[in-house]
Amino acid sequence: MVFQGRNEMKTTDEKIFEALDGFAIEIPSWGFANTGTRFGKFVQAEAATSIEEKFADAAQVHALTGASPTLALHVLWDLPHGVSDAPLIQALQQKYGVRAGSINPNLFQDQKYKHGSICNPSAEVRQMAIQHLVDSVEIARRLDSRDVSLWIADGSNYPGTQSIPRRIDYLMEAMAATHAKLGPEQRMLIEYKPFEPAFYHTDIADWGMALLLARHAGAKAFVLVDTGHHYQAQNIEQIVAWLLREDALGGFHFNDRRYADDDLTIGSIDPYQVFRIFHELLSHPYGLKQTAFMIDQSHNLKGKLEAMVQSVCGAQELFAKAALIDQERLAELQKDARLVEAEECLRSAFWFDVRPVVRAWRRSRGLREDPLEELRTNGYLEKVRAERRERNSGSVSSYA
Amino acid sequence: MVFQGRNEMKTTDEKIFEALDGFAIEIPSWGFANTGTRFGKFVQAEAATSIEEKFADAAQVHALTGASPTLALHVLWDLPHGVSDAPLIQALQQKYGVRAGSINPNLFQDQKYKHGSICNPSAEVRQMAIQHLVDSVEIARRLDSRDVSLWIADGSNYPGTQSIPRRIDYLMEAMAATHAKLGPEQRMLIEYKPFEPAFYHTDIADWGMALLLARHAGAKAFVLVDTGHHYQAQNIEQIVAWLLREDALGGFHFNDRRYADDDLTIGSIDPYQVFRIFHELLSHPYGLKQTAFMIDQSHNLKGKLEAMVQSVCGAQELFAKAALIDQERLAELQKDARLVEAEECLRSAFWFDVRPVVRAWRRSRGLREDPLEELRTNGYLEKVRAERRERNSGSVSSYA
Amino acid sequence: MVFQGRNEMKTTDEKIFEALDGFAIEIPSWGFANTGTRFGKFVQAEAATSIEEKFADAAQVHALTGASPTLALHVLWDLPHGVSDAPLIQALQQKYGVRAGSINPNLFQDQKYKHGSICNPSAEVRQMAIQHLVDSVEIARRLDSRDVSLWIADGSNYPGTQSIPRRIDYLMEAMAATHAKLGPEQRMLIEYKPFEPAFYHTDIADWGMALLLARHAGAKAFVLVDTGHHYQAQNIEQIVAWLLREDALGGFHFNDRRYADDDLTIGSIDPYQVFRIFHELLSHPYGLKQTAFMIDQSHNLKGKLEAMVQSVCGAQELFAKAALIDQERLAELQKDARLVEAEECLRSAFWFDVRPVVRAWRRSRGLREDPLEELRTNGYLEKVRAERRERNSGSVSSYA
Amino acid sequence: MVFQGRNEMKTTDEKIFEALDGFAIEIPSWGFANTGTRFGKFVQAEAATSIEEKFADAAQVHALTGASPTLALHVLWDLPHGVSDAPLIQALQQKYGVRAGSINPNLFQDQKYKHGSICNPSAEVRQMAIQHLVDSVEIARRLDSRDVSLWIADGSNYPGTQSIPRRIDYLMEAMAATHAKLGPEQRMLIEYKPFEPAFYHTDIADWGMALLLARHAGAKAFVLVDTGHHYQAQNIEQIVAWLLREDALGGFHFNDRRYADDDLTIGSIDPYQVFRIFHELLSHPYGLKQTAFMIDQSHNLKGKLEAMVQSVCGAQELFAKAALIDQERLAELQKDARLVEAEECLRSAFWFDVRPVVRAWRRSRGLREDPLEELRTNGYLEKVRAERRERNSGSVSSYA
Repeated sequence: MVFQGRNEMKTTDEKIFEALDGFAIEIPSWGFANTGTRFGKFVQAEAATSIEEKFADAAQVHALTGASPTLALHVLWDLPHGVSDAPLIQALQQKYGVRAGSINPNLFQDQKYKHGSICNPSAEVRQMAIQHLVDSVEIARRLDSRDVSLWIADGSNYPGTQSIPRRIDYLMEAMAATHAKLGPEQRMLIEYKPFEPAFYHTDIADWGMALLLARHAGAKAFVLVDTGHHYQAQNIEQIVAWLLREDALGGFHFNDRRYADDDLTIGSIDPYQVFRIFHELLSHPYGLKQTAFMIDQSHNLKGKLEAMVQSVCGAQELFAKAALIDQERLAELQKDARLVEAEECLRSAFWFDVRPVVRAWRRSRGLREDPLEELRTNGYLEKVRAERRERNSGSVSSYA
Repeated sequence: MVFQGRNEMKTTDEKIFEALDGFAIEIPSWGFANTGTRFGKFVQAEAATSIEEKFADAAQVHALTGASPTLALHVLWDLPHGVSDAPLIQALQQKYGVRAGSINPNLFQDQKYKHGSICNPSAEVRQMAIQHLVDSVEIARRLDSRDVSLWIADGSNYPGTQSIPRRIDYLMEAMAATHAKLGPEQRMLIEYKPFEPAFYHTDIADWGMALLLARHAGAKAFVLVDTGHHYQAQNIEQIVAWLLREDALGGFHFNDRRYADDDLTIGSIDPYQVFRIFHELLSHPYGLKQTAFMIDQSHNLKGKLEAMVQSVCGAQELFAKAALIDQERLAELQKDARLVEAEECLRSAFWFDVRPVVRAWRRSRGLREDPLEELRTNGYLEKVRAERRERNSGSVSSYA
Repeated sequence: MVFQGRNEMKTTDEKIFEALDGFAIEIPSWGFANTGTRFGKFVQAEAATSIEEKFADAAQVHALTGASPTLALHVLWDLPHGVSDAPLIQALQQKYGVRAGSINPNLFQDQKYKHGSICNPSAEVRQMAIQHLVDSVEIARRLDSRDVSLWIADGSNYPGTQSIPRRIDYLMEAMAATHAKLGPEQRMLIEYKPFEPAFYHTDIADWGMALLLARHAGAKAFVLVDTGHHYQAQNIEQIVAWLLREDALGGFHFNDRRYADDDLTIGSIDPYQVFRIFHELLSHPYGLKQTAFMIDQSHNLKGKLEAMVQSVCGAQELFAKAALIDQERLAELQKDARLVEAEECLRSAFWFDVRPVVRAWRRSRGLREDPLEELRTNGYLEKVRAERRERNSGSVSSYA
Repeated sequence: MVFQGRNEMKTTDEKIFEALDGFAIEIPSWGFANTGTRFGKFVQAEAATSIEEKFADAAQVHALTGASPTLALHVLWDLPHGVSDAPLIQALQQKYGVRAGSINPNLFQDQKYKHGSICNPSAEVRQMAIQHLVDSVEIARRLDSRDVSLWIADGSNYPGTQSIPRRIDYLMEAMAATHAKLGPEQRMLIEYKPFEPAFYHTDIADWGMALLLARHAGAKAFVLVDTGHHYQAQNIEQIVAWLLREDALGGFHFNDRRYADDDLTIGSIDPYQVFRIFHELLSHPYGLKQTAFMIDQSHNLKGKLEAMVQSVCGAQELFAKAALIDQERLAELQKDARLVEAEECLRSAFWFDVRPVVRAWRRSRGLREDPLEELRTNGYLEKVRAERRERNSGSVSSYA
């Protein structure tokens, strides 16, 4: 079957192959560790604890999918000694054939951050937090990792307990101080989130705030869109279009959600939304160029590796669908306000079943057709479960 | 009883009197007309039809409250002949002692705007819309009205039917063209709204988009916050704080809502939120200076005049409460993260019953103590009902 | 390609053919009329005004899709003289080969319903409203139409203005009185909606309230699920499962939405949700038996007929996808908590491109392959536009 | 000042005194323990660990407020050995003068509950969960505690991974089995929650589901309303009115929230809502009779005891305000649809500053005027911090 744009000679298969050849998505080291909700964690025998285990798991995912060559690192958990752990990471990169991806500082776990990190009313705590950001920049530099990814969990729980405007000043200062340390090839990505873990206000609540901070910090600062960090019913693809126009989109943390920041598998609740986001990127002249694709999910129940492979494959399929949109014809129908035809032009790509072609692409690239099936049968899971089970059997903390 | 800040010598009464002396809120001409939902209108005998009736009603509200000296005008409904209607408005200002307030263009009613006004894919329609904006600027100039208030109802109903990025370009062009016509004392206020009447995307969906448009347009463009134009659970006072910091807050359309843009009486669903918004304004060095307060409500069931008087009085009371916050002490408690004390410091002003002092202020300023009671008994309602009843008894349109 | 359940011998094609043969969805007469938002209507030349035009349009949709044999009627608009209009409807049924579907009373348009219809504090108004319901039952009886569909738009706009518990009593009384008039083959379907047109409270806000009313009224009362009448993020398929278990599901009003009750084309925003709803119905032993499928949409911008044909075809495709779910295998995977496999089992049916098979089914049933293309070219639209254009060119009402 | 109903001779002071004399609210043992979000806990020196510490803290709150005579217990944390711990609790009751309140089973912490407790696809796990419920009933019986409070955290994270209808059957079975064990004076309260910790579906998502379960279980089963367990914008007081009408309201878990189940201090975000809930209870003939008031909050940042005292005092004040509503006059105004007057009748009680009268009540009942101030100065906090600090200084678990 040929799914063909009017002015393009490429076949559907060619379009999908081309799309998949150019598609990569970063996976997070913490996606292989035990995580949960405030009510507890359900531990998994195969969960990774050490950074080496995480590299090993990432390598397995990449071997199966061919699409996850980098591993996002979390400074506190993966480089507990900070910059001095960089050589260890370099060795692991070498050993496992997976590169270090974005570097993620941690500004929420220390007890000192009870009332905020870079927004804390205490100058001493703010300085400590800024230093951690600066250290993270240095780590990224050492690892040749382009992006430092900033999620600032600061906020307040009750009206009146903190000064919102004063904390904006603190934000501006910290972002500028961090930006000043970036090397010529480095970037900082500023994430926003309207709720959790602070309940009344989160200091960087939406893309507008993140963009103002990025602008204030400097030309190497960009906005990071986590798809789960939005109000219900918010049109994310529209935000993407605005950020692209402002040359301010740095990347994505992909995940899905029904109510809050549920950190579910990409496209598992609303696959059509992911497709529309990819559409905005693909219809922009250089939408893909500077945009980092990252997965940020918390698989509390699904098997850690199984879910990660599923996520990467799911992202590939939705991206392949979006690559089938006949952009030229769509633009014409939009111009003439031929609404139903324009809508069907878009949806026709969504409804096309790309799975057989994706399987064909995998074969042609020396991969197994069905990465999930391969993972279930190739022995890797049994091996790591046997190795890690004992370490994962310890008691877990209680809610109260 | 003395409600006193530590370093301030003013009594509670003095603070409230001072706050009320400085408080004014604009009321909208369309607030006196019959309005409804898509399912129909419940017509009121006293509803105003002509612009003179609206001026008369506004004068009545101002006479009762002492706080609504200006009337927002809607170009299409109040100046149907555009600029040439300006002398008529000037005469009415003179006659009724109420000044023309913000000028509100209409870019949603004409059948040509089916697929958008300034974002329409047709260049001809976009030009027509821009011309209407330019005319509105001229009307404002003639009437010595500072603000042109832009609500752009454009958007699309289905994914793919319109190009979001192309429409951003159109927005930028129209805003710049309008700004170019502003006189030295004029401002344009850009409103945002995340839903309705377009369903899938509204072209100016949030404050971030409005701010980017204002920045692009020029120094006389500001953002207008309509309190009903937000996602559920969005922290509006935080947006206010950011806009204040960016010198970009132009004013408010006040109303309240439970679910969508319900256009209910200010503070009728969540009075604490209004208090917190006033708090952000009052704690900012010049938060009140450039900020226009306007009511934009649709009283489908309540009596038109009764609801307007209630709204102005309710706004006065909430503003008076906010003026009682001991800002200095609050700042200290926030600095020390004394959370419960800071919260109680804020709430203590909210819980103080300002009504007796507000009544005393009214007496001292030559007003009746109870404007609602006065309205019910002074004969104005009977008079206008008698005059207007017949005109308001015509058939109303059906949903389908 | 064969998409096959383990224990079932049917091919994918057979499953889809069987599903489509059994699938019908009712379309609403008001879906062919001009409708809009509170800010206005964009009139369409082809919009139907008379009940005959609506029957003609419905017949056209059914001729093209083979799946919409009945037309929902709105008493006020389609039978303005009530019961005495029944013979006219019978004649139209005969003439156009489309049967009268559910009968929809109107309890929101009359000026007397300002403070409610069956919940009005005035006993006289309540009686008038009940009489309208009783008349609607009689109309349905005369037309051999099984279902009377009750949407009660009652509610209040402000806390305290109406007594919620007293109005529950009124609801109970009215539902019982209506139920008492139902013939042995008749049913009443009770719709719920949490917002609009009342803003603070709607008297039948959710499925729990509708179910209690149905239980109280009697065995012929069922709940009607309008997919747009839910809170954001509400899991509709779960409600469907509960209503099925309680033998209380009467039918659906299908439409889609992003924020509020946007009345968009089914599956246009979240097609996966519709698929999941169909899945719950198909996995229930007699989920389809008593469940009426109806479209209730308001196409403010899309062409009236075009959108209706698109809706019916879209519903067919999503239903066909759901029919491919391997229920037996899914149940096993769920039992063993093989989460990713169970999820992929479900999604595999969603991702299967049913369109070629649906086209084949159409050919085999004597229909055109592409109903939308056929509508655009068969001359019907030109004909009715020419006939109706003038009537639709009249002035439309203004918001204020 | 006299705030007086037309037919009632009571003064405002008398009404408030009477209201406060009849007001009690249960506090939860886990409210004194360290709790947090999935991202971590900020530990407090004064946090209670043992059940004796929790009784001591509860006694302190009750001594200060005079309004919290009972302590809700959590079986897993407070009676880790189940029924055999009952004598210990009895001794603590005696020693501290605070009675055991509702008994709360735990069905979410055990690793076996990964895929659900009473809804688990494994019959063995379901049986284990039911046994825990039955044990909890026995504990309640031994402690003469009327209510067993059931929060079922079961659900699923992805469409298709669990069978919703099969799990409804399991729910029905478990509720019936638990009900069968209740003594003549015992009750079971069934809580609902639409999100968290399961993300795609929670098995008891709303009040309708809880009510059906209660009805199925038997006459001693009631619904528990946790104010934080609702969709955004949901009208909780309306649900209260329906549950009262159905004689199905068992009690409340009070807390407040902005976005999700934030478990904030009652009335801290939307105090007007709490007032309206109390209004529905007070306007019902026996609304207060069977309704248990409980606090269920998680003070992650506020001092544990400080926040609990603040919560009880805040609840007292809002209840006192609601007691001032002139129900008779309100009913008349509602009957006549005098909307603004009815609304102002309701709000007038909300705006009345009850704090001076509440202080007077405290004095007259032998309590300190300002419980929060008393707590800050009476030495209790210093004492328990000194005793407990070391135990609370251990390491806390990490998110990943």
